[in-house]
Amino acid sequence: MPSHLSRAQLDEILADDAPFADLFGFVVEEIGEGTARCRLPYSDVSIRPGGTISGPAMFALADFALYIAVMSEVGPVSLAVTTDMTIHFLSKPGKMDLIGEARLLKAGRRLCVGEVVIFGADDPDEAPVAHVAGTYSVPPDAARK
Amino acid sequence: MPSHLSRAQLDEILADDAPFADLFGFVVEEIGEGTARCRLPYSDVSIRPGGTISGPAMFALADFALYIAVMSEVGPVSLAVTTDMTIHFLSKPGKMDLIGEARLLKAGRRLCVGEVVIFGADDPDEAPVAHVAGTYSVPPDAARK
Amino acid sequence: MPSHLSRAQLDEILADDAPFADLFGFVVEEIGEGTARCRLPYSDVSIRPGGTISGPAMFALADFALYIAVMSEVGPVSLAVTTDMTIHFLSKPGKMDLIGEARLLKAGRRLCVGEVVIFGADDPDEAPVAHVAGTYSVPPDAARK
Amino acid sequence: MPSHLSRAQLDEILADDAPFADLFGFVVEEIGEGTARCRLPYSDVSIRPGGTISGPAMFALADFALYIAVMSEVGPVSLAVTTDMTIHFLSKPGKMDLIGEARLLKAGRRLCVGEVVIFGADDPDEAPVAHVAGTYSVPPDAARK
Repeated sequence: MPSHLSRAQLDEILADDAPFADLFGFVVEEIGEGTARCRLPYSDVSIRPGGTISGPAMFALADFALYIAVMSEVGPVSLAVTTDMTIHFLSKPGKMDLIGEARLLKAGRRLCVGEVVIFGADDPDEAPVAHVAGTYSVPPDAARK
Repeated sequence: MPSHLSRAQLDEILADDAPFADLFGFVVEEIGEGTARCRLPYSDVSIRPGGTISGPAMFALADFALYIAVMSEVGPVSLAVTTDMTIHFLSKPGKMDLIGEARLLKAGRRLCVGEVVIFGADDPDEAPVAHVAGTYSVPPDAARK
Repeated sequence: MPSHLSRAQLDEILADDAPFADLFGFVVEEIGEGTARCRLPYSDVSIRPGGTISGPAMFALADFALYIAVMSEVGPVSLAVTTDMTIHFLSKPGKMDLIGEARLLKAGRRLCVGEVVIFGADDPDEAPVAHVAGTYSVPPDAARK
Repeated sequence: MPSHLSRAQLDEILADDAPFADLFGFVVEEIGEGTARCRLPYSDVSIRPGGTISGPAMFALADFALYIAVMSEVGPVSLAVTTDMTIHFLSKPGKMDLIGEARLLKAGRRLCVGEVVIFGADDPDEAPVAHVAGTYSVPPDAARK
């Protein structure tokens, strides 16, 4: 199994632990080992004037995708917390769903560092609209392979 | 007038330009010259399991407060856009409204850089729960003093 | 004593642990409780064309000042390591020494987060030329008050 | 030609404009279109106790590599300046040269955003030891394709 997080474990955690997943309607499309691909549907809650998805909604997508990538590596941990996130906004996204592709750069005993590239779901070039680098702190006794 | 942005100008911009202000219910409490103090009310839309305000809601508060601080310095500009934001999460906030105090570190012709300190509205110590540093890009022809 | 780090402890650590302090000639001017004020002398090793101090030298100053601020809070720890640093360059410094004023925003069991403001030593306004926010990881068994 | 910067143009700029290239001995190994691969030789000036290359030296490598990547896209510009840089330190590098691979995520009229991955030159896995995301501001009249 490429990921250390099963779909059933994921569903259970998201049911308990992710009101933002509900608010924004995030969809987990793929989970790998240290990677995750998540979708932010285009909806009223996320758009800003001009009809494109807002910066804070992109931040929420990146935070969510990185959380899934962390769990794909260390297993289901409900107590992982973000310690820092840096986002660069690159271009205005089109009026479409957004994809966040997260991958871990480091999976340490206490800190996991990763990056997320965000692009338009229907953009054939997958040109990045935002880039995020950030850190999750995981409990020392987190379940691990 | 300490700010280059009147309350009437602010209200007009927020009516057009800030769906997140609506979503989260942000309140602008004070505007100075290059400073702004904004409130994120404690509400269902912003909380996470455990009952404290979520990271993305804190990011949205910081982004909003910095935007107000930028306009307090350069005047009303609806086209200012965030180019980068770095957030450090410091401690779990209490179950209460949050305050974001923004101040500009630089107000350049094209780039404004500032920081935002977030703390609990009812915390007598005003201990910071998050810190943000970020940049807004402003149009070269923005109205200025 | 305002700091948990004595001048003698500081000198001992710097003798062992800070080649960059030597390279750049950093001077620790003040240590408080969770704060530090350090000086980067104006010298050939730090300047760039035009005669002002380079970005990497400012980064080194901020990293050093934050390290001293961490030790002022948790006591002498030679194994503290930087985990992330975000620097915003605000304006070109004058041809003069630079001061880095660091203060901790959080002093946790494992992570210390702080910020550093850098300004020209002879600038009467102390206008910031760079701002840094960053994190140090400290060993769980670090000496503490 | 894959890059908009010739080797002769690069040499001329580096002769004028990069004392840090001298101090650290940076070598430009490859230039592509919006990409650059640079080497930081292992030397006394860059190491810290324990014999591995210091954080500020890695920051300098990333800043340099990103500068070369910017010029590879917009042509030779001596006035590009770093506006922000975020570095995450991932693991302690080995006692060896380091490689910084930079690529632009955005090449705008005024702002270029990119990332740099740093790894050990002799590490067969090229495991990243640091990751950097940052922005260069370029003059509006910079030479461009």
